[in-house]
Amino acid sequence: MKYQNKDYQSVWLENGRLYIIEQSLLPAEFKIIELKDIRSVYRAIKEMQVRGAPAIGAVAAIGLALAIKANPLNAKEYYDHLKSSRPTAVDLRNGLDFVLNSINYGDSAEDKGAKAMAAASRFTAGIIEECRLIGQFGNELIKENALILTHCNAGALATVDHGTALAPLRAAYNSGKNIFVYVDETRPRLQGARLTAWELAEEGIDHAVIVDSAAGYYMYRGEVDLVITGADRITQNGDAANKIGTYSKAVLAKENNIPFYIAAPFSTFDHELKRGSEIPIEERHQDEVLKIKDISLTNGTSSALNPAFDVTPHSLITGYITPAGIFKQKDMGKLWEIVIRERNSEQI
Amino acid sequence: MKYQNKDYQSVWLENGRLYIIEQSLLPAEFKIIELKDIRSVYRAIKEMQVRGAPAIGAVAAIGLALAIKANPLNAKEYYDHLKSSRPTAVDLRNGLDFVLNSINYGDSAEDKGAKAMAAASRFTAGIIEECRLIGQFGNELIKENALILTHCNAGALATVDHGTALAPLRAAYNSGKNIFVYVDETRPRLQGARLTAWELAEEGIDHAVIVDSAAGYYMYRGEVDLVITGADRITQNGDAANKIGTYSKAVLAKENNIPFYIAAPFSTFDHELKRGSEIPIEERHQDEVLKIKDISLTNGTSSALNPAFDVTPHSLITGYITPAGIFKQKDMGKLWEIVIRERNSEQI
Repeated sequence: MKYQNKDYQSVWLENGRLYIIEQSLLPAEFKIIELKDIRSVYRAIKEMQVRGAPAIGAVAAIGLALAIKANPLNAKEYYDHLKSSRPTAVDLRNGLDFVLNSINYGDSAEDKGAKAMAAASRFTAGIIEECRLIGQFGNELIKENALILTHCNAGALATVDHGTALAPLRAAYNSGKNIFVYVDETRPRLQGARLTAWELAEEGIDHAVIVDSAAGYYMYRGEVDLVITGADRITQNGDAANKIGTYSKAVLAKENNIPFYIAAPFSTFDHELKRGSEIPIEERHQDEVLKIKDISLTNGTSSALNPAFDVTPHSLITGYITPAGIFKQKDMGKLWEIVIRERNSEQI
Repeated sequence: MKYQNKDYQSVWLENGRLYIIEQSLLPAEFKIIELKDIRSVYRAIKEMQVRGAPAIGAVAAIGLALAIKANPLNAKEYYDHLKSSRPTAVDLRNGLDFVLNSINYGDSAEDKGAKAMAAASRFTAGIIEECRLIGQFGNELIKENALILTHCNAGALATVDHGTALAPLRAAYNSGKNIFVYVDETRPRLQGARLTAWELAEEGIDHAVIVDSAAGYYMYRGEVDLVITGADRITQNGDAANKIGTYSKAVLAKENNIPFYIAAPFSTFDHELKRGSEIPIEERHQDEVLKIKDISLTNGTSSALNPAFDVTPHSLITGYITPAGIFKQKDMGKLWEIVIRERNSEQI
């Protein structure tokens, strides 16, 4: 990811220390912070200083490994604490499992620390490479002069590097294609207006911010060729949880015969759940809807409802852009074989 | 309309002076302002101190009448000026036509003023009565414990009194029904969060604000029974322009088998246009999307697109709640006969 033409990741380990780009301050302020202990990792996830399913997985994996290294006896307690930080993205659990499963009960304290750190690094490197591959495969869907719509931020910020939904856009742009991106602002937290627009501006990719309600307008006019979003959890049947409003985009895409793709690394797939209705949906505080910074948007007495995610049923999803290629829902069986094989082979 | 248990209209004439509730300040500040000349009427419409198709029609009609009374020679110039203030709502033109057509070339200056003022009052009183009837007819659609979703503000503020979409909700509540209203916040100008929530809170009607993207979530879960919105212009075939995002609600309602109704007085019907694609769609300034008050929501370089309206094709509209009853699209012929007859009979 570029920022002022320098390369960054949204989450990284450097000399045994965990750093993140503080996403809740962007784009007004570009600030790097260190997460020094398990409590600051928990808080960073919960308060969305770091957000995006794969990035949450990576920061949790590294945070857990550092905590195990410091105090291996409390491994399971740390695991449970971090796992409770946010409910919807399965990458969180997968990242934590990856680290916890790397250590054995009988290992020495030193071995536990070393194994956990190695696993966390492998998990994070895996996500980065998977996102690069998502970009490479997704680029095949993008034609010259394509008009592409995306929702929320499924960029490098959300995924350590490259992005999921944004990886194909970066790849298309870097391979010389002319593209234009409609950036849904993505209320209430404005990840599109704040983060996706910032990433695209830093890369030099042509784009415009629109209110979430305007996506249908451009689709109906035939001015959208392709919709790509990320995901927070994909179940056995291909249903996908993602940022609130994703379902609406998928319905509008279907109504207007526009292909709708979900881009995700293997860590977003959850083989334990059969269908989307089983995914826990996080309800966040109503003030995210009622206020922008300290400005009240409404009267003092009305309340708000604030579901942070919705589920897009597989019947609305044209295909899944994955590190192993692009799959249709009818080929989910093959995709699951690859997901499970990859996960086992990484976990050595 | 209630405000602190007193009755108000959003636009009214009192001792020959034109007053409005300054809607761009609500709900933080309840302020009544006088519009003293044609320039302040133009500016109030353009800058949305008064908004909502029927309210725009009324304020333009009264503003034009007052200007004609002051200077009858410039009637056509005033008419053209006010007509250019906003392009999408046809009520503006209909209100202005109603006043201009009431005067004859040969009338004395005094007669012109008197006729114009009488016409403007008749036009405004007509809208109020029509909205009351919309409430009465629309109430028939609302069952006990109904969960109703509305977009933007089609309340008393938007229509002088009662509202279009909100009139049936008021009538249902006042007839003792228990209802709950999902209020789309309606980015970018937040008419739902600012104005609809305020009106419902003042009436005591149970409601919650949601981001525009969450409407589909509740529809998919089976937690919305009915969608009602207003309109800015309805063409011969029943296509309806309304606030950006209305089309998305209609598509989502169809996908989830939820009835979607448009509520509108006769002044919103435009027999001159065959279909929705002929309706001019206002593009407003990008800062409405990029900023909230003085807070920039995005980076300094990204631009925004800001279409203020979209068109919902008649195929997505379950029915039209009008002052003459509820009509299906297949009965548009009958509805147009009534619209044209009513317009001619009012214009005496």
